[in-house]
Amino acid sequence: MPERCGQYTITLSNSPTILGYAAVGGKKEGEGPLGKRFDAIFEDTHLGEETWEKAESALQREAFTRALDKTGLSKSQVQLLFAGDLLNQNIASTFGLREMAIPLLGQFGACSTMGQTLAMAATFVDSGAADLCGAVTSSHFCTAERQFRFPLEYGGQRAPTSQWTATAAGAVVVGRGSRGVRVSAVCVGRVQDLGVTDMNNMGAAMAPAAADTLYRFFTDTGTVPTDYDLIATGDLGLVGSRLCRELMEKKGLPLGENYTDCGLLLFDRDTQDVHAGGSGCGCSASVLCSYLLPQMESGALRRVLFAPTGALMSPTSSQQGESIPGICHAVLLTSGV
Amino acid sequence: MPERCGQYTITLSNSPTILGYAAVGGKKEGEGPLGKRFDAIFEDTHLGEETWEKAESALQREAFTRALDKTGLSKSQVQLLFAGDLLNQNIASTFGLREMAIPLLGQFGACSTMGQTLAMAATFVDSGAADLCGAVTSSHFCTAERQFRFPLEYGGQRAPTSQWTATAAGAVVVGRGSRGVRVSAVCVGRVQDLGVTDMNNMGAAMAPAAADTLYRFFTDTGTVPTDYDLIATGDLGLVGSRLCRELMEKKGLPLGENYTDCGLLLFDRDTQDVHAGGSGCGCSASVLCSYLLPQMESGALRRVLFAPTGALMSPTSSQQGESIPGICHAVLLTSGV
Repeated sequence: MPERCGQYTITLSNSPTILGYAAVGGKKEGEGPLGKRFDAIFEDTHLGEETWEKAESALQREAFTRALDKTGLSKSQVQLLFAGDLLNQNIASTFGLREMAIPLLGQFGACSTMGQTLAMAATFVDSGAADLCGAVTSSHFCTAERQFRFPLEYGGQRAPTSQWTATAAGAVVVGRGSRGVRVSAVCVGRVQDLGVTDMNNMGAAMAPAAADTLYRFFTDTGTVPTDYDLIATGDLGLVGSRLCRELMEKKGLPLGENYTDCGLLLFDRDTQDVHAGGSGCGCSASVLCSYLLPQMESGALRRVLFAPTGALMSPTSSQQGESIPGICHAVLLTSGV
Repeated sequence: MPERCGQYTITLSNSPTILGYAAVGGKKEGEGPLGKRFDAIFEDTHLGEETWEKAESALQREAFTRALDKTGLSKSQVQLLFAGDLLNQNIASTFGLREMAIPLLGQFGACSTMGQTLAMAATFVDSGAADLCGAVTSSHFCTAERQFRFPLEYGGQRAPTSQWTATAAGAVVVGRGSRGVRVSAVCVGRVQDLGVTDMNNMGAAMAPAAADTLYRFFTDTGTVPTDYDLIATGDLGLVGSRLCRELMEKKGLPLGENYTDCGLLLFDRDTQDVHAGGSGCGCSASVLCSYLLPQMESGALRRVLFAPTGALMSPTSSQQGESIPGICHAVLLTSGV
């Protein structure tokens, strides 16, 4: 059952288990270091749809359907879907999952959404509120660029600190099982805002949120970074992950060799022209489902702290002079024992 | 503890209790039938802020602060906030609650958000995942009009089927208590989309979702509409609530005298020029907190099924030819006995 552990962390003792998962992505993601590990790569960024927004919905549908197929269970057995994305009014999720006929709880955590949806699904299963839940999220380079920045046709120059929004989706099905990766604890993020206003430097805006959540999680659980096989923040990229290291060092809990960031794993920064790394809800989601979970199932990793981060601004808030608030939700994944 | 009841409903047996609640609104809401029951009415739709979006954030802050004050507890005791709104990337919630330093899980259910946030808060408390949670939502006529429809300056003519977005916020604090209104069950909505494309007729778009959720809830719990003192859908307004009645009659569970809709309660349709009624996340939220909960505390109502509805489209999805998907989350509130 879910229990409080320290001031901020929730431990899950009823073994909510990841029964199935899948990652799907676009052409560029397929050319990256994890490309071959994806369940499907779509060379056509439209996925045969008329618009990029509909293509992003298709990514969610594809990811969820493939994740569910692997469990051998049917749609009608999934009692709740937790899903979200970066688009205004969460339309990638709503339209992507509309036909599933599964009760849906829309989540918004920007690029931290995979952490949030997974945390919710696991907590609901652990508590008995549901037996089987799905957690789904996506992003699409073309929908995000035109919504948050510029029309693609404008061909705007990208800053060195900018990140590349992944065209990808990840989906996880959580239920009860005797084997498989378990969600053992979650630590929900607090909004952190140190006043960064540069929309081309999301990593810097989100780093304090990552450090805040990691620090609270370690303190609550009485653990230190070396207690984990891997700590993977989401979407901080090169700039943000360096800042996160600095902040954790100042807090007396330095991150070591076992620390990485999903934004650094998805693309090859040397050859793929993504500047500071990957971003978007689909980045950490697809890294989780193409790399982290398989590594855990193979036994290469046993204790992984997955901590995706999100920047909670909108173009409107930025135009109105607001800074960029960040958030980070951490999920402890364990396997084996 | 949360338990499944039938195929879709979750019952909460650990008595998650509403310890505090508050409704705040704008000038027009203050002039409506519930105006005197609000905790605060702001004559200035800017609430002293520079923009309407910041004013909407202020509404959330005001509602939550007042709800919490009534509990006698402090911010630091609230372990989780579930909050959402209609604005792109949930900025009313993020910026409104940023300074609280409370872990935040952004929710998106459009105008059903008060049902969703309350359901989440109650389920988390019931399960032991948290001891004290907040559920907050808001809408603002001026932010919604310019985001979803036209700039206010354009002075667009409104259709008879259109509804008036409430400038209001509601907040509920859920914990464990020996007295007070309890959240006894929740039924999460499925997306329903019968192909309505008229953005000026949200009631029609959302009615099938309301009927779907109400039907599933009654079937799961083996109850009928007359078992409740009041059934209040959210924001269907005149057109949608009539359709909901028709649909429920066809399903063999006709709604009677004890059925109403929050969109019909907030404004006086005869004198306030709101056409089909009120809408917006703040509509059902403020009706809940200014009218339903006080009526339950006074003993006038004992079993209330609160079922706010949301339309999950965005301007982008509508421009791309998509229809308007609806959703409805039901929450069973009980008092006394």
